[in-house]
Amino acid sequence: MTDTSRIHDLHQRHAALAPRLQHVIDHKTKPLGALGALERLAWQLGMVQGTETPALQSPQMVVFAGDHGLARKGVSAFPQDVTWQMVENFLAGGAAVSVLARQHGLALTVVDAGVARDIAPRAGLQVRKVALGTQDASEGPAMSAAQCQQALQQGAAVVDGLPGNAVLFGEMGIGNTSSAALIMHALTGVPLADCVGRGTGVSDDGLRHKLAVLSQAVQVNAQALSPTPAGQADPLAVLAAFGGFEIAMMAGAMLEAAAQDRVIVVDGFIATSALLVAQALQPLVLQRCVFAHQSDESGHARMLAHLKAQPLLRLDLRLGEGSGAALAWPLLQSACVFLRDMASFEQAQVSQQDDHTVSPTIGQKEA
Amino acid sequence: MTDTSRIHDLHQRHAALAPRLQHVIDHKTKPLGALGALERLAWQLGMVQGTETPALQSPQMVVFAGDHGLARKGVSAFPQDVTWQMVENFLAGGAAVSVLARQHGLALTVVDAGVARDIAPRAGLQVRKVALGTQDASEGPAMSAAQCQQALQQGAAVVDGLPGNAVLFGEMGIGNTSSAALIMHALTGVPLADCVGRGTGVSDDGLRHKLAVLSQAVQVNAQALSPTPAGQADPLAVLAAFGGFEIAMMAGAMLEAAAQDRVIVVDGFIATSALLVAQALQPLVLQRCVFAHQSDESGHARMLAHLKAQPLLRLDLRLGEGSGAALAWPLLQSACVFLRDMASFEQAQVSQQDDHTVSPTIGQKEA
Repeated sequence: MTDTSRIHDLHQRHAALAPRLQHVIDHKTKPLGALGALERLAWQLGMVQGTETPALQSPQMVVFAGDHGLARKGVSAFPQDVTWQMVENFLAGGAAVSVLARQHGLALTVVDAGVARDIAPRAGLQVRKVALGTQDASEGPAMSAAQCQQALQQGAAVVDGLPGNAVLFGEMGIGNTSSAALIMHALTGVPLADCVGRGTGVSDDGLRHKLAVLSQAVQVNAQALSPTPAGQADPLAVLAAFGGFEIAMMAGAMLEAAAQDRVIVVDGFIATSALLVAQALQPLVLQRCVFAHQSDESGHARMLAHLKAQPLLRLDLRLGEGSGAALAWPLLQSACVFLRDMASFEQAQVSQQDDHTVSPTIGQKEA
Repeated sequence: MTDTSRIHDLHQRHAALAPRLQHVIDHKTKPLGALGALERLAWQLGMVQGTETPALQSPQMVVFAGDHGLARKGVSAFPQDVTWQMVENFLAGGAAVSVLARQHGLALTVVDAGVARDIAPRAGLQVRKVALGTQDASEGPAMSAAQCQQALQQGAAVVDGLPGNAVLFGEMGIGNTSSAALIMHALTGVPLADCVGRGTGVSDDGLRHKLAVLSQAVQVNAQALSPTPAGQADPLAVLAAFGGFEIAMMAGAMLEAAAQDRVIVVDGFIATSALLVAQALQPLVLQRCVFAHQSDESGHARMLAHLKAQPLLRLDLRLGEGSGAALAWPLLQSACVFLRDMASFEQAQVSQQDDHTVSPTIGQKEA
């Protein structure tokens, strides 16, 4: 696993830059704060890259795929075969993330973290299979501690082998809203029922069944949930107990991306659950994270609130794959573009606002 | 003015297409409804163009600029000169809308609808000045009925002279949140105080002053607000009373864009106020409208609710210029791309969800 001491405090490292960046933003030809969330994003990207002119290079969309023993308990509206079928669809270019990545010039890599079927090697696919799917978490831990470490390590290796300074994180795995809900419950303390949602679209009966199965998973893995002397559950024990391999590998990839000061674009419910693990190991990861959207999956809003995250989009998406991250991508580019290319009041010889008429609260408003 | 009988009911005209489009969307390789707002957008774009494969061609960003007699009453945090200075900035490529239009390949046209200073002709500028700014609406009508007709006509001519099948609408005019608030009050019945906001950033004192000036404008123009036999105020009388030329020209441009079945991308508070006028003249305009974002200007949420509009973005923007429309543009492209390029379950040989496990409510959820 990535040495978390490699993940530095950017606010400390670039302390002198912070007010300079804000000054540049404030002197662009617009009222103070008028570009709203885009201004906060521009400031963040400048701080991640340590410059007043951040630029995004060779962005990488990485989709981690894995299967879940829990799927055998009927927690999803789709059969488990859909995981490998969708991996084929990603690689053939027909899935949502495929077409959106093409639209935005994002290089797409699919990582087989543990799909329950062998997938023929080809360009765009990295086979880093830990096993043919996890164990059933409602009967015991989804993976061993060694498998968990292996997945984290492989995730770091994925990022290390890719170019660029930004990674967009997506996933595929029938049953993985169940894993994500369990991780959320364990690491945030939110009641399980508030973490569990409809996923790809289970019915009311299906939702009751899903909650019952996940309650059993919590009971069976009580050990993993018990607080350490530090006062909360051990993130690695939680990850091993509830899986899946794609989530563990994504958490490892996020830690490495953070250590390399790459911009981390977080997709929906599952990707955010991987981040919950990564930030429990090293909260400074969050300084590099851009939250693409708030998903329609019911637990996601609360998961984001736990992280004090302000998502860019709210489009009722609940697809995963990195589709929300891809849709938000042009906003990151816009943040860089306005910071670099917009004229200042001085450059454009535009009159500034009359200071005494300006609201002191405006420009510092929270979303 | 555009003959509003040229604006047809698309739902009637393409009645047979509607269910076919929904079928195509529903059979893409994703759970039912999982692309949320993007699915509704794809359906709408298909209906506007009358095809299962809508495509956006030569999109035009048109920024209408005009000055306001009301500005002399101190309703803005910025001096009136900023209108022409920002027009120069648009044309020089240094404004937010300039850099965002470049980012997304949007052709940018600036229209001088009535700036209070002569602006030297050049490429990218259309001089269609009705007058050197409107009259002060707190002392009488902002423009005459003839000027209002002239502005509507000129707006239609702008659209008619531009290529492409989509128009993004932006504006510039110091004082124009005041005009927009007055139009909103007159055409929606929302109390004036709930229509008036901080605009580019007036202080608490400035806001009280702005409301007082606008209350006077309502009193002075009481005639324009009186209901016609149809039961509501005459939209053209309201437009003439409260201005400005950029809003009237934009309303005319929107009507013509609707008559030509172009996609209309509506920016923030001011652009939506122009649409309030257009849709009061012909509600079917709305079938072509995509609402780019919900502005941070306090009245915009209620204005959108009045139109039953679901904005794509909520980024706390309050800049105008068409900046929000430009930021939302890639989402329109994504809607077309997924509809055209995503594989169906049949094409990709992916298993579909088990019908009896699927929630009947999902996929029909409102934002």
